Amino acid sequence: MDVYQQITKPTLILDEGRVRRNIAMMAEKAARQGIVFRPHFKTHQSAEIGLWFREQGVRAITVSSVEMALYFASHGWEDILIAFPVNVREMESLRWLARQVRLGLLVESVETVEALAAGLQDEVDIWIKVDVGNGRTGIPWQRLDQFQAVIAAIGASRLLRLRGLLTHAGHTYNANGAEEVCWVYHQSVERMIVLRERLSETAGAALEISVGDTPGCTLCSDLGGVDEIRPGNFVFFDGQQLRAGVCQPEDIAVVVACPVVSRHPERNEVVVYGGAVHISKDTLALGDRRVFGLVTFPLAEGWSQPIPNAAMVRMSQEHGVVELPAELIERVQVGDLLCIIPAHVCLTVSCLGRYIMLDGGEILTLNSSGTQG
Amino acid sequence: MDVYQQITKPTLILDEGRVRRNIAMMAEKAARQGIVFRPHFKTHQSAEIGLWFREQGVRAITVSSVEMALYFASHGWEDILIAFPVNVREMESLRWLARQVRLGLLVESVETVEALAAGLQDEVDIWIKVDVGNGRTGIPWQRLDQFQAVIAAIGASRLLRLRGLLTHAGHTYNANGAEEVCWVYHQSVERMIVLRERLSETAGAALEISVGDTPGCTLCSDLGGVDEIRPGNFVFFDGQQLRAGVCQPEDIAVVVACPVVSRHPERNEVVVYGGAVHISKDTLALGDRRVFGLVTFPLAEGWSQPIPNAAMVRMSQEHGVVELPAELIERVQVGDLLCIIPAHVCLTVSCLGRYIMLDGGEILTLNSSGTQG
Repeated sequence: MDVYQQITKPTLILDEGRVRRNIAMMAEKAARQGIVFRPHFKTHQSAEIGLWFREQGVRAITVSSVEMALYFASHGWEDILIAFPVNVREMESLRWLARQVRLGLLVESVETVEALAAGLQDEVDIWIKVDVGNGRTGIPWQRLDQFQAVIAAIGASRLLRLRGLLTHAGHTYNANGAEEVCWVYHQSVERMIVLRERLSETAGAALEISVGDTPGCTLCSDLGGVDEIRPGNFVFFDGQQLRAGVCQPEDIAVVVACPVVSRHPERNEVVVYGGAVHISKDTLALGDRRVFGLVTFPLAEGWSQPIPNAAMVRMSQEHGVVELPAELIERVQVGDLLCIIPAHVCLTVSCLGRYIMLDGGEILTLNSSGTQG
Repeated sequence: MDVYQQITKPTLILDEGRVRRNIAMMAEKAARQGIVFRPHFKTHQSAEIGLWFREQGVRAITVSSVEMALYFASHGWEDILIAFPVNVREMESLRWLARQVRLGLLVESVETVEALAAGLQDEVDIWIKVDVGNGRTGIPWQRLDQFQAVIAAIGASRLLRLRGLLTHAGHTYNANGAEEVCWVYHQSVERMIVLRERLSETAGAALEISVGDTPGCTLCSDLGGVDEIRPGNFVFFDGQQLRAGVCQPEDIAVVVACPVVSRHPERNEVVVYGGAVHISKDTLALGDRRVFGLVTFPLAEGWSQPIPNAAMVRMSQEHGVVELPAELIERVQVGDLLCIIPAHVCLTVSCLGRYIMLDGGEILTLNSSGTQG
């Protein structure tokens, strides 16, 4: 249990073998179907893990902020798509990025297109964000008039290269099991294809289609007629994905090791050092409850299967309250570690900002390497 | 609106006048009642804001982690209580701290006391954590046997000075309005006083009583027979405190300025750059919904009153979806800022790690000053 001896506070523990296997699986799936694999790096946020993708042939990546684009550009990535609606207040950084790398930007309004046309000095790829039913950002896929207006505005600038249509079918996260997830995924892809056809005259050139969500890209064997996928979470998976049937316990590649600080056998609970500032307050459904994480024991080779009937049931700033089956409480002492499978690992990585591998090696991220700000 | 011109991404905006007024109010209240004011610094996490407390005569502080204790010790604080159950895996840092400052530690088990007795080399103050009904950590206040065992273990070490009994009546956060909050507060204090009497023979010396939660310390005019209070959140207040009737809109001292990136008038929503990694996923009750924050407009002198019938209603990693009344949607354009009152400001500060003051000056925290790790 060597790696755990050095752990003093809540720490991400990473199983490199599982991460590499998850990456290879998705890279091979995309390659087999002739689809560009542009993984979302917001999940791991790490230059070093980025290299493991590069070894699988990945050359184009997705990020969710200008900050992340700057970080990965500084680590040698030359084709970066910021899959977040352009924030016109960051024009100075966008201008710099457009000079350094092949930059992809996401737009959904004429105002933003005009701001880019006025603010940039180099060519960029432009993707139009489509809302296929998720209801967060993007132009609703039925609103041809809005797409046509945006395409016209793009056409008016020589710096803006219209690449295609992009969506995030985030509502697959609310689906359960392969059948439901793939129904949502394929419905989304179909809507994108219909939209492309309707826009073929307006757009002039062939529009590419970019989609990407971990549930759909993992569970659906046929990814449909898309040009590019952008899943991110699959690199680690997490409690939400496990509960939704998207992955198996053996696919989970990151947990949070948390020291036990308080025992309460009378209520079948222990309290760990590991709260909202470490794990984040996202939740997953367990039976009829929402909980903050699943619970495993540390093992020499990694961590155990999730303990049945155990969960992180309450959380405050630094505390996590873990419910355990009565028969296990006596095995857990103050100073022991429990390994928590977080509900939503992307947020946990953003909180903790560094990983320890099972061999004790450290991996830094955007948040720990001093590039942030 | 000068301060807002420099804002490019989600940023904490701080009104220094309000912060200083909130500090003065609490310091004066404690002084009038002859109670030690040991504010909790986990809310602001900033050495510079710490100085504003020092100007009000504060010499003793509370923190929630060893990391925070190290940070404030390095900024000249000499009396620091870590109000989190001792994590025995951090013994090396505790040993260092005990040599540098007057260190207060929180225990609730014989095992932890024995680990401290074996691991420390200098004297520390020991507080026993009491659970007066909150059900998170601490010995339930009725369990005299457990207190007696812990006190005996403390007495066996010459390094452990038994200071007193400490509780966090966190269940005042679920109470609503002054009457309910003060009922919970005074019930907690009474239980602490009863417990002290019952332990007077065992303990030998006079035990001090330390309590502290923002709702109780703010709303109850008489703080009762306690020796020390440790509120933290009152320095800024937030959406949860406002909705619970603990503060007025004019007391809110920190908001998050978020750029608008997407408009959806057809559903009365705009999307801002400002999500779970910036604001955190804590929620507050608004009518029959849970929302992530209240919404204000930026103003030259700070920000407006909360906009009625507006809220951050959904949130993902980087996105916040803001619902606005139909008549205001047209006033909000892409590139504008909205100022969000977060549900739980302590978590937001932990995410964002720096403040911009209304005069444009920057204030760093533990997370931005390179001391973390």
